[in-house]
Amino acid sequence: MAPEKTAVEMHPQRWGDPAAATPLNDAARGLVELAFGLHEHPPVASSPVPAPAIDPTLLDALREVVGAEHVLTDDDTRRLRTRGKSTPDLLRARAGDLSDAPDAVVRPGGPDDVAALLALAVEHHLAVVPFGGGTSVTGGLAARRDGYAGVVSLDLVRMKRLVAVDPVSMTATLEPGLRGPEAEALLAEHGMTLGHYPQSFEFASIGGFAATRSSGQSSAGYGRFDSLVVGLTVATPQGPLVLGSAPASAAGPDLRQLVLGSEGAFGVITSVTVRVRHLPEVTAYEGWRWRSFAEGSAAMRTLAQSGLLPTVIRLSDETETAINLARPDEIGGAGAGGCLMIVGYEGTPEAASARQAAVTAVLTRLGGEWLGEEPGRAWAHGRFGAPYLRDSMLDVGVLVETLETATFWSNAERLYAGVKAALEAALGEPTMVLCHVSHVYETGCSLYFTVATPEGEDPLGRWQAAKAAASDAIVAAGATITHHHAVGTDHKPWLAAEIGPVGVGILRAVKAELDPTGILNPGVLIP
Amino acid sequence: MAPEKTAVEMHPQRWGDPAAATPLNDAARGLVELAFGLHEHPPVASSPVPAPAIDPTLLDALREVVGAEHVLTDDDTRRLRTRGKSTPDLLRARAGDLSDAPDAVVRPGGPDDVAALLALAVEHHLAVVPFGGGTSVTGGLAARRDGYAGVVSLDLVRMKRLVAVDPVSMTATLEPGLRGPEAEALLAEHGMTLGHYPQSFEFASIGGFAATRSSGQSSAGYGRFDSLVVGLTVATPQGPLVLGSAPASAAGPDLRQLVLGSEGAFGVITSVTVRVRHLPEVTAYEGWRWRSFAEGSAAMRTLAQSGLLPTVIRLSDETETAINLARPDEIGGAGAGGCLMIVGYEGTPEAASARQAAVTAVLTRLGGEWLGEEPGRAWAHGRFGAPYLRDSMLDVGVLVETLETATFWSNAERLYAGVKAALEAALGEPTMVLCHVSHVYETGCSLYFTVATPEGEDPLGRWQAAKAAASDAIVAAGATITHHHAVGTDHKPWLAAEIGPVGVGILRAVKAELDPTGILNPGVLIP
Repeated sequence: MAPEKTAVEMHPQRWGDPAAATPLNDAARGLVELAFGLHEHPPVASSPVPAPAIDPTLLDALREVVGAEHVLTDDDTRRLRTRGKSTPDLLRARAGDLSDAPDAVVRPGGPDDVAALLALAVEHHLAVVPFGGGTSVTGGLAARRDGYAGVVSLDLVRMKRLVAVDPVSMTATLEPGLRGPEAEALLAEHGMTLGHYPQSFEFASIGGFAATRSSGQSSAGYGRFDSLVVGLTVATPQGPLVLGSAPASAAGPDLRQLVLGSEGAFGVITSVTVRVRHLPEVTAYEGWRWRSFAEGSAAMRTLAQSGLLPTVIRLSDETETAINLARPDEIGGAGAGGCLMIVGYEGTPEAASARQAAVTAVLTRLGGEWLGEEPGRAWAHGRFGAPYLRDSMLDVGVLVETLETATFWSNAERLYAGVKAALEAALGEPTMVLCHVSHVYETGCSLYFTVATPEGEDPLGRWQAAKAAASDAIVAAGATITHHHAVGTDHKPWLAAEIGPVGVGILRAVKAELDPTGILNPGVLIP
Repeated sequence: MAPEKTAVEMHPQRWGDPAAATPLNDAARGLVELAFGLHEHPPVASSPVPAPAIDPTLLDALREVVGAEHVLTDDDTRRLRTRGKSTPDLLRARAGDLSDAPDAVVRPGGPDDVAALLALAVEHHLAVVPFGGGTSVTGGLAARRDGYAGVVSLDLVRMKRLVAVDPVSMTATLEPGLRGPEAEALLAEHGMTLGHYPQSFEFASIGGFAATRSSGQSSAGYGRFDSLVVGLTVATPQGPLVLGSAPASAAGPDLRQLVLGSEGAFGVITSVTVRVRHLPEVTAYEGWRWRSFAEGSAAMRTLAQSGLLPTVIRLSDETETAINLARPDEIGGAGAGGCLMIVGYEGTPEAASARQAAVTAVLTRLGGEWLGEEPGRAWAHGRFGAPYLRDSMLDVGVLVETLETATFWSNAERLYAGVKAALEAALGEPTMVLCHVSHVYETGCSLYFTVATPEGEDPLGRWQAAKAAASDAIVAAGATITHHHAVGTDHKPWLAAEIGPVGVGILRAVKAELDPTGILNPGVLIP
């Protein structure tokens, strides 16, 4: 029931599969040249990884737990477990900075191995960084080293089983190391789908989805990951935590929601039981044009508050529409004008058609212009491609990064304006700030910003200043510092503002209870 | 924006409004006589309340915070704040046992009062029991007294404002003391509804709904209360906790879900921001008959997993159907036969009709027999009435109590059989065990049992033994000890089994962090 244990490794200095790299096409290159100038800036050639700073007897102890072949200290393996895939992470990797490399990569074969490794880590004060897909964009994989006997990347690549399927309850229990496509392939054998498609889908893991409260492009239809989870098992230094005795319960606080978003700081998630759906018989994506971002957003709100959401719904603002970011092959070409909305329907033919008819009636009444299926197909074709484009932009000296937030509907315009203005002021001309709404709820929505600006002399410092300004604007607007990318190390100061000192105190107390010696992903999540 | 501060007080020995008491009709009385015999057993006359065991200087200090008129120590007020409304609570009250009476009842006027009262309680080691509607059925209002300078009932009756309404986001911020009908009346002025109708609706409060993770009879359409909450403010001994910056977030664990279900043990909820809906233009309830509980349950599962739930859906098992428990005026009359399902539709005429058509097609295809609107009307008429009947049964010597649980669909039959057998074995003949499903999810459902049995020599001991046997059966089946009634003091041992020692450790750590001196509702929730 498990896929083969090896999968494509990401390039250590870029997103994704090296074979799938996407150079800028001529039109895109022309647009970049016009906007920012072209300044070829390739990454440095492969740089040395710092020697493992861990006592050899500790490595032997790790080998005793998982077997010698699953304790790896070679440069290539450690390089590929260094940090995540935020633009700051890539800038450091492209500059040859591997100072955050783990001292060893350890691959447990199951929950017992994880428990034994945690016990060993407590005994010797080893920092343990759970590693799934390595797709963190918030600094969730760069542990503090100070005072630790070493930093171990706990690579969950061997824990890829579909543990159980319950076709009556429509649930499935998955191990944390399964990447998105692997999980879907296993579920498809049972006619099931998870329906969770974040942009990182091809590389990110089930454990990571849970640990970071991920949300996928089909969240309107399938729900965000935290709403899919009905059960969890977690290995902690204090012993196993097993949660999920019913879909819903009043037996005290919902501790599942404390594990979801815990980013490896409270324990290592060793299995996740999720709600699944039947594989859709039909999928149909289409485009709509709106005169303005505000009108399109209002239409999304109407659908959400009418209980009429399609499976996929996303809306690009005027700038993002003009750039064709939702249709990557067309970047630099003629834009659709106005604001492009992508709407998708999945399910049985009857259910999808009925929903399509109902949604179409609402969108037409509200002034949307139907653009047919071509924009939908173009979006679906490129839906996981944007991170590859970022690498191509970095190659020509353009800093590209994204950030996202969420708020209640009545606050969305203020938040949009505030973040956009903060980014533009921090980065100066020429800077492009694009935005889309891609996750909607009855009471509010997410805002996802993409920024492109010349890298300048100090790209990292430039982005950090802009990110701080945007984060301040988010907090000033009373919104959340992240809708679906976790806290990591990057968002900690603003998390403290968001949940206040009493909220921070709760996180610290739970951390101290479950991980009293602080070995679990030290430095992430907790301000 | 606040309703008048006084509302009907419940009878200290019975459920609800004394004016609404429901004596058994002749048919019901005949049924009871046949099944159990009639043994008139009226409650004792009003008994003395223990004198307040609190230092008068402390009362003065409390008066300084809220004003002398809001610190009450008279017998009547304290009697009405003694325990909740479980059958064990009523048995004790009917026997004249008022040993759990609070020493004083204090009525804060707002969050600042609450914060000041908590500070005072910490300083003097006073136990504080938040009091909303007084409808707990799990011992959530009987604090431990040992070692405390006194027990204060923190009556939230003055905190009844509709603080804010956001018609764009469709949210409303409510104070915790609002009872169900008061909150609905305030929202109705804005064309809004919360749609939360637990059986305790007429008396239970907004703060209590949140603190106990309540679920209402329309949960299929409106969602359980924890899913309605988007924001909370909580007064804790460590300061205020303000949560809810977006509908959904990845900024760490969802701490809202840690407050929901915290039963006053972590803090006092001073406001709740909830998702609201437009007032339904139409409401239609109808009856369906199924050949068996299993067939009816399977139909509910099909609806839930097809995304086709009506607003209300509930299914009585064969015994409950035969007794007509879903149609209280008909108890003792001819039953509908088979298993009665109540299905309700609310919303706009178009949406309700469309949903009704889709649901009707599924239920018909699966073998349901449509019974028309009369059973639906009868259910709606009596939907809040069952607790009154319990009092009438206690009056004639019949012990009546309910308990509930939830599990995944594939486990529901096993759970049903296990709990029923445990109750029947513990109580012996003649005992009636009735059951219905009233809350359904894609992955599972609740089971709600009603038990009637002769009270015997020791009604309290008799019930406690049966409850323990049922709770053991619930845990043995891997289900949750409560789907919508909280832990209180009654469920603590089984909560420990459900979440395990690591889960209990988390609750204790959060308690120690937020309430280090243990003044908040001591003895509830935390094993």
